[in-house]
Amino acid sequence: MIEITFTQVLDFIGTLAFAISGIRLASAKQFDLFGAYVVGVVTAIGGGTMRDLMLGNQIFWMTNSFYLICSAIALLWVIAFRRLLVRQNNTWFLFDTIGLALFTVTGIEKTLTAPAEYPFWVAIIMGAITGAAGGVFRDVFINEVPLIFRKEIYALACVIGGMVYGVCYHLLGLDTISSGLICGSTVIIMRLLAVKYGLHLPTLKGEPE
Amino acid sequence: MIEITFTQVLDFIGTLAFAISGIRLASAKQFDLFGAYVVGVVTAIGGGTMRDLMLGNQIFWMTNSFYLICSAIALLWVIAFRRLLVRQNNTWFLFDTIGLALFTVTGIEKTLTAPAEYPFWVAIIMGAITGAAGGVFRDVFINEVPLIFRKEIYALACVIGGMVYGVCYHLLGLDTISSGLICGSTVIIMRLLAVKYGLHLPTLKGEPE
Amino acid sequence: MIEITFTQVLDFIGTLAFAISGIRLASAKQFDLFGAYVVGVVTAIGGGTMRDLMLGNQIFWMTNSFYLICSAIALLWVIAFRRLLVRQNNTWFLFDTIGLALFTVTGIEKTLTAPAEYPFWVAIIMGAITGAAGGVFRDVFINEVPLIFRKEIYALACVIGGMVYGVCYHLLGLDTISSGLICGSTVIIMRLLAVKYGLHLPTLKGEPE
Repeated sequence: MIEITFTQVLDFIGTLAFAISGIRLASAKQFDLFGAYVVGVVTAIGGGTMRDLMLGNQIFWMTNSFYLICSAIALLWVIAFRRLLVRQNNTWFLFDTIGLALFTVTGIEKTLTAPAEYPFWVAIIMGAITGAAGGVFRDVFINEVPLIFRKEIYALACVIGGMVYGVCYHLLGLDTISSGLICGSTVIIMRLLAVKYGLHLPTLKGEPE
Repeated sequence: MIEITFTQVLDFIGTLAFAISGIRLASAKQFDLFGAYVVGVVTAIGGGTMRDLMLGNQIFWMTNSFYLICSAIALLWVIAFRRLLVRQNNTWFLFDTIGLALFTVTGIEKTLTAPAEYPFWVAIIMGAITGAAGGVFRDVFINEVPLIFRKEIYALACVIGGMVYGVCYHLLGLDTISSGLICGSTVIIMRLLAVKYGLHLPTLKGEPE
Repeated sequence: MIEITFTQVLDFIGTLAFAISGIRLASAKQFDLFGAYVVGVVTAIGGGTMRDLMLGNQIFWMTNSFYLICSAIALLWVIAFRRLLVRQNNTWFLFDTIGLALFTVTGIEKTLTAPAEYPFWVAIIMGAITGAAGGVFRDVFINEVPLIFRKEIYALACVIGGMVYGVCYHLLGLDTISSGLICGSTVIIMRLLAVKYGLHLPTLKGEPE
């Protein structure tokens, strides 16, 4: 019997949401179906690929077709429901947030178990890269200024989640499961609050040209 | 005596055509000669570099100056014949198609002989990356939306060629040379038909904003 | 007692200058503070990261928090002095040039001591990537056509510096310290002359559309 873990359900939800965001933005730029699929895949797996290259890990999606199939489901979903997607925006925002939280935790844990040993701040960075870099690659592909650096707090939520993980794991001595749950919850809460109250970081302006 | 293989001739033709496409597009964006050369190189070797990084291979061009020299020849060609290039468009389109086919086959074969073992669908993806990613990097460099996701079937020809390779090699039991020839021919025929008849994939439109 | 070497001082100056260039350009594009920091970091360490990935090295900044701290200091500097930065332009140009020279030498030396052995032209390319690729990544992030391929001689200064290193080290038999000093000086002098006299490479124009 195939057993499906809670993490796998979250991974499916997150991958789906990330891929859909890529497919929608690429379609708005007149990418064809294949191009939209590629941008969806890059959004979903780009961050983890970057992380695995930097850590010297085997790249995660190259041994498991799960992620490419998820992205194909995302493409079919967009094709089937594209006129309804706007009304599903709240759901997709929630799924995207779950993905951001899970991918952050995954990035941290992959660093802690990497072949080489790294200081904990590297794990925090790898968590943020796993969560947020896919969206940056997406925006580079569709030739837009990366959104996550200009709108509500996004990658910073990953960094703060990573710091919370470090406090739980190294200072309070919690295990990886509890630390991961608390880290992920922090990311989700920060992101929900940021969007609900329109919280964003200040920009640096005022330099005379 | 130096022996030149048929594959090396194709490799020269393909590298030349890819580099020339990068150099021409960069020049149209006012890149200087050095910048145009860099974009030409990236177009020619970017896909294979990405593939080798992902597979954990030694990067192919770092042990063989052939590719950088080809790109330099491409630069000289563009300098010498730039007013005639438009009239050579059919030739360069053909050479580009030959390059696309060869690079696809190369990407598949490098995956089959990589240090780690991968499922065959990874080889298909690596074939498409080797063939098509250089053009994506080129378009990112010159700050344009990647062309291959919007015009006639391009990367999809690599994917279908890769599937044909898999059928020949794994199902029909053909050797790598026959599988490669049939795969490459498929890529070339698909690409020629796509351009002759203006075949392109549909785009996803109609999402209300 | 902590001993600070001359190289570390130059590394600090160069990292600071590179990060500041990224932070300023990102701020002009309305990036928030976190986004500006990320672009600053990418400008400062992007070239070396690319180099280490290609050479199969451990990535340099993942074992040493120096570079991220430098970039944080750069951010604080821009926040504190942003109205004065324009008047500091000559200083930052000089520091940027020192960084370019040091990073070029570092890239060459990391290639000479890499796990695998490479021909010397690879070291020249790695020097140029270490010096100049961060600025390309910066421009891709902020969605501009890379500046270094259009303005005064920049990456070419790294390449010529690298050739000078090769002459000193391989032909004249000088040690790495002397070769590095002469290479770095060449980069600095070329860059200063290029800006002082507005030297730039020709562009390829005149292709009929």
